[in-house]
Amino acid sequence: MTQIQNASGMIPTPAAAPPDILRCAYMELVVTDLVRSRDFYVDVLNLVVTAEDEDAIYLRSMEEFIHHNLVLRRGEQAAVATFSYRVRSPEELDKAENFYRELGCPVIRKKEGFVKGIGDSVRVQDPLGFPYEFFYEVEHVERLAWRYDLYTPGSLVRLDHFNQVTPDVPKAVKFMEDLGFRVTEDIRDDKGTTYAAWMRRKPTVHDTAMTGGAGPRMHHVAFATHEKHNILAICDKLGALRLSDHIERGPGRHGVSNAFYLYLRDPDGHRIEIYTQDYYTGDPDNPVVTWDVHDNQRRDWWGNPVVPSWYTEASTVLDLEGRPVPTTERTDADEMEVTIGADGFSYTRRGDDDSMPEWKQGEYKLGNQL
Amino acid sequence: MTQIQNASGMIPTPAAAPPDILRCAYMELVVTDLVRSRDFYVDVLNLVVTAEDEDAIYLRSMEEFIHHNLVLRRGEQAAVATFSYRVRSPEELDKAENFYRELGCPVIRKKEGFVKGIGDSVRVQDPLGFPYEFFYEVEHVERLAWRYDLYTPGSLVRLDHFNQVTPDVPKAVKFMEDLGFRVTEDIRDDKGTTYAAWMRRKPTVHDTAMTGGAGPRMHHVAFATHEKHNILAICDKLGALRLSDHIERGPGRHGVSNAFYLYLRDPDGHRIEIYTQDYYTGDPDNPVVTWDVHDNQRRDWWGNPVVPSWYTEASTVLDLEGRPVPTTERTDADEMEVTIGADGFSYTRRGDDDSMPEWKQGEYKLGNQL
Amino acid sequence: MTQIQNASGMIPTPAAAPPDILRCAYMELVVTDLVRSRDFYVDVLNLVVTAEDEDAIYLRSMEEFIHHNLVLRRGEQAAVATFSYRVRSPEELDKAENFYRELGCPVIRKKEGFVKGIGDSVRVQDPLGFPYEFFYEVEHVERLAWRYDLYTPGSLVRLDHFNQVTPDVPKAVKFMEDLGFRVTEDIRDDKGTTYAAWMRRKPTVHDTAMTGGAGPRMHHVAFATHEKHNILAICDKLGALRLSDHIERGPGRHGVSNAFYLYLRDPDGHRIEIYTQDYYTGDPDNPVVTWDVHDNQRRDWWGNPVVPSWYTEASTVLDLEGRPVPTTERTDADEMEVTIGADGFSYTRRGDDDSMPEWKQGEYKLGNQL
Amino acid sequence: MTQIQNASGMIPTPAAAPPDILRCAYMELVVTDLVRSRDFYVDVLNLVVTAEDEDAIYLRSMEEFIHHNLVLRRGEQAAVATFSYRVRSPEELDKAENFYRELGCPVIRKKEGFVKGIGDSVRVQDPLGFPYEFFYEVEHVERLAWRYDLYTPGSLVRLDHFNQVTPDVPKAVKFMEDLGFRVTEDIRDDKGTTYAAWMRRKPTVHDTAMTGGAGPRMHHVAFATHEKHNILAICDKLGALRLSDHIERGPGRHGVSNAFYLYLRDPDGHRIEIYTQDYYTGDPDNPVVTWDVHDNQRRDWWGNPVVPSWYTEASTVLDLEGRPVPTTERTDADEMEVTIGADGFSYTRRGDDDSMPEWKQGEYKLGNQL
Repeated sequence: MTQIQNASGMIPTPAAAPPDILRCAYMELVVTDLVRSRDFYVDVLNLVVTAEDEDAIYLRSMEEFIHHNLVLRRGEQAAVATFSYRVRSPEELDKAENFYRELGCPVIRKKEGFVKGIGDSVRVQDPLGFPYEFFYEVEHVERLAWRYDLYTPGSLVRLDHFNQVTPDVPKAVKFMEDLGFRVTEDIRDDKGTTYAAWMRRKPTVHDTAMTGGAGPRMHHVAFATHEKHNILAICDKLGALRLSDHIERGPGRHGVSNAFYLYLRDPDGHRIEIYTQDYYTGDPDNPVVTWDVHDNQRRDWWGNPVVPSWYTEASTVLDLEGRPVPTTERTDADEMEVTIGADGFSYTRRGDDDSMPEWKQGEYKLGNQL
Repeated sequence: MTQIQNASGMIPTPAAAPPDILRCAYMELVVTDLVRSRDFYVDVLNLVVTAEDEDAIYLRSMEEFIHHNLVLRRGEQAAVATFSYRVRSPEELDKAENFYRELGCPVIRKKEGFVKGIGDSVRVQDPLGFPYEFFYEVEHVERLAWRYDLYTPGSLVRLDHFNQVTPDVPKAVKFMEDLGFRVTEDIRDDKGTTYAAWMRRKPTVHDTAMTGGAGPRMHHVAFATHEKHNILAICDKLGALRLSDHIERGPGRHGVSNAFYLYLRDPDGHRIEIYTQDYYTGDPDNPVVTWDVHDNQRRDWWGNPVVPSWYTEASTVLDLEGRPVPTTERTDADEMEVTIGADGFSYTRRGDDDSMPEWKQGEYKLGNQL
Repeated sequence: MTQIQNASGMIPTPAAAPPDILRCAYMELVVTDLVRSRDFYVDVLNLVVTAEDEDAIYLRSMEEFIHHNLVLRRGEQAAVATFSYRVRSPEELDKAENFYRELGCPVIRKKEGFVKGIGDSVRVQDPLGFPYEFFYEVEHVERLAWRYDLYTPGSLVRLDHFNQVTPDVPKAVKFMEDLGFRVTEDIRDDKGTTYAAWMRRKPTVHDTAMTGGAGPRMHHVAFATHEKHNILAICDKLGALRLSDHIERGPGRHGVSNAFYLYLRDPDGHRIEIYTQDYYTGDPDNPVVTWDVHDNQRRDWWGNPVVPSWYTEASTVLDLEGRPVPTTERTDADEMEVTIGADGFSYTRRGDDDSMPEWKQGEYKLGNQL
Repeated sequence: MTQIQNASGMIPTPAAAPPDILRCAYMELVVTDLVRSRDFYVDVLNLVVTAEDEDAIYLRSMEEFIHHNLVLRRGEQAAVATFSYRVRSPEELDKAENFYRELGCPVIRKKEGFVKGIGDSVRVQDPLGFPYEFFYEVEHVERLAWRYDLYTPGSLVRLDHFNQVTPDVPKAVKFMEDLGFRVTEDIRDDKGTTYAAWMRRKPTVHDTAMTGGAGPRMHHVAFATHEKHNILAICDKLGALRLSDHIERGPGRHGVSNAFYLYLRDPDGHRIEIYTQDYYTGDPDNPVVTWDVHDNQRRDWWGNPVVPSWYTEASTVLDLEGRPVPTTERTDADEMEVTIGADGFSYTRRGDDDSMPEWKQGEYKLGNQL
């Protein structure tokens, strides 16, 4: 793909209007062992099977009324086939086509849809290299919100957001704003570097976020629970099943988003976040919250260390022909490096750079080993 | 103190009957800055002040009806002055005196009590070197259980247990059994080493535990909340106050005890556990749960790493004249060393010694650095 | 006011476009004893005081960033002065003016706003008789979402919705749809009567609802908590303060909306709902849920009786000159009458009309006394 | 049975020592439709089946390690066959035999036990007419406390207590004190009448309670959950299954015991309480809480009305030959009558007898109809 960008390195704003996106709707994951993935997503996480066949499983959350929020497709190499968004009406698909074609992106439109349950759809590889899908037509299924006979202690009730890894966060943010997204929070330093940004269409903290790193890669996909104890119940169940090694990070409280969180890794290493209780962001003047990258509470409000794998590992994404998209390294400063180790630092209280007690220094071990 | 022990290294069982102990009742902590400690225990943790003067603050939990569960006393060096237990009747104090005198321990009895609110009391330095107190007479105060106008999101409702560090766990357990305690759970290996044991008088998992390490030292004192969200609220509040560096470990689910937990460090480094939801242990044939020291879910059911400070740091204890008690090193295998690092290992699934993913290896960094 | 309506009794759809409404934003309540109301809303419910003077108190919820969600204004007679909505931009105020003027409604525009903290505003008395306000300009204040040092066990985090009593629900719904609202749920019978309808702008179940009854009156204003235990904590605190008689109904689970709820009455009898955990409704084809009026789980999923006062009592609303608006009786069938008593019935299981056990018959006592 | 009592109407204190009772252990219920009862206790409430055959089902809670906490036995007439308590050692059974024989009660001892899983047992019909059982020997089963893969949103974790209906509460209390129970709370009036009393062996608020009314009858048997949301989940599930008419009263917060509660009726009308979070009562001088019968928060801290059926309905108990025990009417004042209706009253604030708003008067409707 020839990626269009102007002299400043920014992707030019198309003259074509962007599609009116409602919300992140589903992710299509390629998994290498469908049975094992089914065990994880259905038997452990209790996502609901809308449909399944030999090659794919279509899963939804308890409060969803569209066909699915996650597609598991059997494949040779673990990867992400698409980040899919629902738009406000069928007409928005023409806008999506025009918007991305003007940018020179690969675009495929399929009236019958790319996956079961979804009709007329546009798939693109966007200027950042990510496979995006847009659709309106979708099969309605039973919203199980009232089916308390089916709830489990850790039931997932909504798809909440995606998270993407990309080398140049300001470039990605500018592009996503052209696509109609609004920034709600970000992480920066006082030298002008942006490390990550959260952006929304629906009025929550995000439908997707851009995390600085070698990309395009998929950092995680997040499902919401009703309450915090539901997230703890997932951890407890993983312990009981002797699968606690699926827990990568958390549970904890995010600084960014103020949500309660847990990160899991599925059998292929795809990262799943379980998330609850961020805040309403729907007003146009919703205040953007900017966090200092050195603030030790930005990613965990309780100051618990971020494990290195969380910074460094992410899933491959596929182009429209199903080939892995090569990644580009980040050239800006790296969040892990500026906060951990010999050249980095974090503080609990601004101006109090030595405020980390020994028991908080897990995050700093890379450069400052015991 | 001349510590009595027989040829096997065990403390002989006294002919005198032990006192009938009801429960752990309060701890007296020596703190170096009373104002700062008050900020922590009263303003942050919302323990209730029963009484205070220039030298000491008497604190209780919301459901307590005796004068206090914690005494903070101003002193030069941070330490523990006593682990105090309530006995079933005034007559039990004579038994306590006789029991410890027969063992050759220092014993002081004070009809007027050693601290405000408590009457006739016996203080001893026990054969393991710990300062223990026994009392029955106590001033009753309002049980605030129904005072929901005073509850905060993280209210502490009961003193739950103590935890002591001692070099020889089997020796300590045998002595505590002579004192009338029963083991509910322990951590062992298949070579016969015991790393820690939990023991109770009231029918919960413990009134105190013995943790293997250089001792006598105080590992922690634990307060209970009603529900798990109360513990999360304490973390959230510490974050809001930019005091998250008081969080040492957790929150998490224990394997041992099945309780939900959080470990904090107070301004002097004394360790406080917040704890909720263990189980009933009051039947004489209550099954003892033995955990393999290599089971990575024994101390955190979710497999999250134990920070090294949690294993190595603990509070000095004082003898009856207020002098720090010198410690003796542990000679048995050390839990941190056998589970972490070059010579240690842990597993999530027994027989699956390589089951630790990279993101779980925080615990292993001592010997297996990145 | 001369209320415009066409031959069918419906309010004609204006040619003018409606304003683009973001969300319900605040209610202005007239209270007869400002000190007593402050006790209730600030000391008991812990709403945050943004500003106050001798005549008015401006309150907000923990996650709000605009000046207030509730104004308490001292007055002779308890009433509602306005239901206020925020619009997407300053330009929308012109649309609001034109929309209501075309309908012949009283309209006042004030560049400096009607209340503290709010700028350019339009107030109207709508065709249903309700005092509505629209604004965009507003003073930003600190969003206290992260201020866990300020949270209480029952903290209110957002204004969620209004609820209005009006005699003719289909007429009101048609008008609200013209104003840009969408129905999410309603209560009907098989004879074609609509008893109540829920309508939204933001993607929750509602920004306002129309409840059939003598109107225009204000049924309730609702604030959200994070979790269900927060609502229970409010009840517990009211008990501790010996103010439990402020609890009118609940707590319980709604059928309609699937939310967890509690209804309180303030010192003037204004009804306040505390509400948590409804579901996302932002897709244009979001399925409308219609409940049978005879379904005993429609208003309380657990089948607990609705107290008669909840059906019959509501607050007076004021016109733009501050005079009480006279009410019109409902002529359609009445929900309480068709479900309770000699001529009414409810079922737990459809087709099983005798399924009410004795202990559920509180709701039926009006016509079927013991 | 010839009931022994002395001139004052009290049951004489036996010279024989009472058995040392650990805790309430299980109830044997006679049910008329074993399949339907299984649906309720296993499929809805998720009690765990330890064993079952054509005639009986043996159920336990998640944290239990003895064979069962509930036996459902098929029979012609719904009733209670035994209230069973565990004692501290096998030797205590001799004491139980002697204690009740001295009182002239029917006593049967069976070395092989009366039900599956239990060994040597003593069954008696006590002087109050209730069928009581005592045992020590019991089959151990897996304690499922850590089996979070088996937990449901409303899991029951412990048997908490029984509740018995008896005409003369002071007489019953005196007898139970002779048996070694201690009163923790009671309900009285200023004329000296006692309406109910709570008594414990294990250090919770009760192992059983005595409720004034025609007796002997069984008022309810109570199981504990971990947290309040677990109880709400049971209600939600009953709604989803269209079984909400099994909910008789609650959920709510008790005044007495300070616990969170819910009362269900099983398919035979046996009353089951779900209960969580009372307080520690194990000290000998634990303060007894006495509630005024006119305090409207005594039975529901939020002042929600008690439904009449809760006062009037209870289960028949069987004698040792399986025959229904005839009941004796209460002659003291009746709690429902003194608090409800023409001759009764309740207050939210003492001295404020008119403090009941209309919406709280459900409780008063018997005498003061709308």
